[in-house]
Amino acid sequence: MLTDIEIAQQTKLRPIAEIAEELHVCPEELEPYGRFKAKLNDDLFKRLENEPDGKLILVTAINPTPAGEGKTTTTAGLGQAMAKIGKKAVIALREPSLGPVFGIKGGAAGGGYAQVLPMEDINLHFTGDMHAITSANNLLCAMLDNHMQQGNVLGIDQRRVLIKRCVDMNDRALRSIVIGLGSKVNGIPREDGFIITVASEVMAILCLAKDLKDLKERLGKILIAYTYDGKPVYAKDIKADGAMTALLKDAINPNLVQTIEGTPAIMHGGPFANIAHGCNSVRATRLALKLGDYCITEAGFGSDLGAEKFLDIKCRLAGLKPNCIVVVATVRALKYNGGVPKAELAKENVPALEKGIENLRAHVENMHKYNVPVVVAINRFGTDTDAELKVIDDCCKSLGVEYALSEVFAKGGEGGVELAKTVCKVIDENPESHFAPIYDLDLTVEEKIRTIAQKIYGADDVTFTNQAMKSLKDIKALGGDALPVCIAKTQYSLSDDPTLLGRPTGFNITIRDLRLSNGAGFVVAYAGDVMTMPGLPKVPSAEKIDVDGNGVIHGLF
Amino acid sequence: MLTDIEIAQQTKLRPIAEIAEELHVCPEELEPYGRFKAKLNDDLFKRLENEPDGKLILVTAINPTPAGEGKTTTTAGLGQAMAKIGKKAVIALREPSLGPVFGIKGGAAGGGYAQVLPMEDINLHFTGDMHAITSANNLLCAMLDNHMQQGNVLGIDQRRVLIKRCVDMNDRALRSIVIGLGSKVNGIPREDGFIITVASEVMAILCLAKDLKDLKERLGKILIAYTYDGKPVYAKDIKADGAMTALLKDAINPNLVQTIEGTPAIMHGGPFANIAHGCNSVRATRLALKLGDYCITEAGFGSDLGAEKFLDIKCRLAGLKPNCIVVVATVRALKYNGGVPKAELAKENVPALEKGIENLRAHVENMHKYNVPVVVAINRFGTDTDAELKVIDDCCKSLGVEYALSEVFAKGGEGGVELAKTVCKVIDENPESHFAPIYDLDLTVEEKIRTIAQKIYGADDVTFTNQAMKSLKDIKALGGDALPVCIAKTQYSLSDDPTLLGRPTGFNITIRDLRLSNGAGFVVAYAGDVMTMPGLPKVPSAEKIDVDGNGVIHGLF
Repeated sequence: MLTDIEIAQQTKLRPIAEIAEELHVCPEELEPYGRFKAKLNDDLFKRLENEPDGKLILVTAINPTPAGEGKTTTTAGLGQAMAKIGKKAVIALREPSLGPVFGIKGGAAGGGYAQVLPMEDINLHFTGDMHAITSANNLLCAMLDNHMQQGNVLGIDQRRVLIKRCVDMNDRALRSIVIGLGSKVNGIPREDGFIITVASEVMAILCLAKDLKDLKERLGKILIAYTYDGKPVYAKDIKADGAMTALLKDAINPNLVQTIEGTPAIMHGGPFANIAHGCNSVRATRLALKLGDYCITEAGFGSDLGAEKFLDIKCRLAGLKPNCIVVVATVRALKYNGGVPKAELAKENVPALEKGIENLRAHVENMHKYNVPVVVAINRFGTDTDAELKVIDDCCKSLGVEYALSEVFAKGGEGGVELAKTVCKVIDENPESHFAPIYDLDLTVEEKIRTIAQKIYGADDVTFTNQAMKSLKDIKALGGDALPVCIAKTQYSLSDDPTLLGRPTGFNITIRDLRLSNGAGFVVAYAGDVMTMPGLPKVPSAEKIDVDGNGVIHGLF
Repeated sequence: MLTDIEIAQQTKLRPIAEIAEELHVCPEELEPYGRFKAKLNDDLFKRLENEPDGKLILVTAINPTPAGEGKTTTTAGLGQAMAKIGKKAVIALREPSLGPVFGIKGGAAGGGYAQVLPMEDINLHFTGDMHAITSANNLLCAMLDNHMQQGNVLGIDQRRVLIKRCVDMNDRALRSIVIGLGSKVNGIPREDGFIITVASEVMAILCLAKDLKDLKERLGKILIAYTYDGKPVYAKDIKADGAMTALLKDAINPNLVQTIEGTPAIMHGGPFANIAHGCNSVRATRLALKLGDYCITEAGFGSDLGAEKFLDIKCRLAGLKPNCIVVVATVRALKYNGGVPKAELAKENVPALEKGIENLRAHVENMHKYNVPVVVAINRFGTDTDAELKVIDDCCKSLGVEYALSEVFAKGGEGGVELAKTVCKVIDENPESHFAPIYDLDLTVEEKIRTIAQKIYGADDVTFTNQAMKSLKDIKALGGDALPVCIAKTQYSLSDDPTLLGRPTGFNITIRDLRLSNGAGFVVAYAGDVMTMPGLPKVPSAEKIDVDGNGVIHGLF
């Protein structure tokens, strides 16, 4: 089989204006970026404001494993398959971060014959949203350090600065640094560090903002530091919110691209699913709901992280009501969850699958707790045996959920027809969404965390460290109890221990610290060390990336 | 009078596709970025390769003063004026850096009724070139630190790393930092610092590269460090050149925009004119020469910095032959050069002007040394008196150069008709360019520096510090003697002392250090401390920038 980039480069893309026209988007509502990418502007939002919404389908997955699950591939493929059965679907995805492209992960626009294109552009600068976020965040940081340098009228305590500069790059050497050295004219010396752009609060804000006005208000509310006498300092206090909004005025508009089969795809925003809420933007999802009869969207990592936050943070905030949740799994990944090492996943192993399938069971049961119908999608591999597929079949029957095999990676939309039909059938049988978040906003922060830990992770209880209790006090004083919580936890396990696969029981979740993302509007609770600045591997994928004299990129997969 | 941004926002822009069509650019040669910006792609280069060139006009200036000279405004206005007299001109400008936009300087797209539009976009992210350069540079740095962290096969000496990360932001706190702290997994601790993007060698390379192949070769040749045993390490040694080129594959294509009167303007690249060569890209200038009968371009700061480098580095490398050099001055700035404080520049002061006009005389005489005809453009202010203009008139007559008053700021193209006619007349009288650089490439680095110092700056001699002599030895060992030199010097004086205005004499230039920009292909010689990372002022202009609910930016000027 061809590589992803070879398949992508063999595809004849349709002009993006044509894709837009099929969605009845007017030319003046489209801002082209080259011939195959465009931004959808505010005029379109205004025109569609009162139009009815399509059905909302969330694609999530079991806990990620080194075996790969193919969530984005399934999302793209399901969109393509919808067209095959005559349904008008619009996909809503996150846009990839540059950092991982040059590290291990490579791109993030699906794979095989279920990809979003142009994959090279999408994986590199796309329409510049990541760069705009980086600039806005770094302007805020520069203005903060400048305020301290130029007289520090607000009395900001340089030991209590809460924001960090960011780069869209895996650069471990910037994790822990000291800045402002050398001489008096070089600023106030202090400990600092960079995070990767997708981990920034500005990214989370862009993805949750309703419009420019809301964006500016949220940016202004970012808690940036405390003063020497312990008072909070917000971005608006140093008058950074206007210029930050100016930097983000185009980035707030969703990007329109297409799948390999010409299905419209809106890619916009891409916050980390551990430290932030892990979903594409509210504006992108809203627009996809207006433009399609079906909006197919995905959330990062497993359902314990991405879907939980999609449902409890994003849907609650934006008033979205999902009609169906697709849980993606592979036989291989479930065997891995049952203890099979990566090298042996190609061999049939029914006992291991029966053990590992408990992970799928947990994710399906969890999603049912939100009162939304679930469909299991098995991303099929050639090595899956009939005996193994029988185990999946039995499990889904015992859970009372529909399931379908998906072969979109190898076959494109055709390979997802069964899945598409199953999803549509389930939605037809449940025309009204009875979605409800898993916790009420009037609970305290601790109660909200405990609810998620027990109901979703399957924990016995939650332990708060002394540092967490200290932070909690500060956060409550600033009104944090009124906000939803965003738990930063390992993606590899339902627990906070990445080595506990399958469906762990008899464990506590330890919250070691909390942080108020006051502009985004949630409290981040850290269950373990969550990496906010990745490093490059020994042989970065950047070493293989190249461009020929005709501008064709090679080695990006 | 209205502010620049008010004038800009009142202008009805023409679709960029229309501007392109008038230049006979085919739709498939144009990559639109929104409706009023576009990139001109490689197909256009290939089609026009063997077409004849138009005439090349360089706009330069006297040494910059706080009074303002209006070089970019004159360049834009001259382009507009050309259309008024029935000539087909294309402007080629640098694109602005984000950093200064939020600092003191504000935007850099001309002013009044001689502006390049859309000024908000141009001054913010434009088409993303600056961000692409930032990313490519920072990928190189991340890969270098990663190499040292992951076994350091090449034996790179962390005390002799030569490249720095960059941001497109005025952020003094990043000038001098320590990175890689905290623990073993956070990289190798070492002293470091950030520079502003426009000061990076990657920016200089993008502006000098002929095409993608040349770009990749130059990126690969960047000298990034020395090993423990003193051997040079280049970017290609850590296999960073391919991925860096991939990041720059769109950024290498020039951007098409328009002036307030619809004159085509190509804005591309913007290296600092002190630390780098201070001109827009070779590709932009070449394209403007192919598309217009006249290409009007500018170079940074005064002619001692920008024009000297334009002529000795860029024109030499690209085989460009300028037909006319316009030296911009104002009566106000010349009075400032004659010792009048800024607050008193509105008052007539003939003796001060007679003293300060020596600065103009030096710049005109210097430009004549390149065998190119010179025209003086006086950017006229309402406060200029007849007696003062008489001084200018006398000076230009004694120099044997044509001059014209320009009122493009207040009147647009109409205000530049006299200047345009004068420039065309001079070119008609000198149909062949007899341009020659001021030094030969076969001189040593020291001899090249001495030639510029004596012939252009008017210095008696050049002093090299011990550090400079040490660096010179290393650079010569790597073949530096074959390259042109790029002197990093204060822009405020012909000398290396910013307080010496007018036409200083009896001074030496001190070279305190040198650096090999091996990819760009020049040796940077530092005559004094040149700032590579500016800071924000006490009240940054960012505090006044805002966006309203309709996405209209305010306060950008």
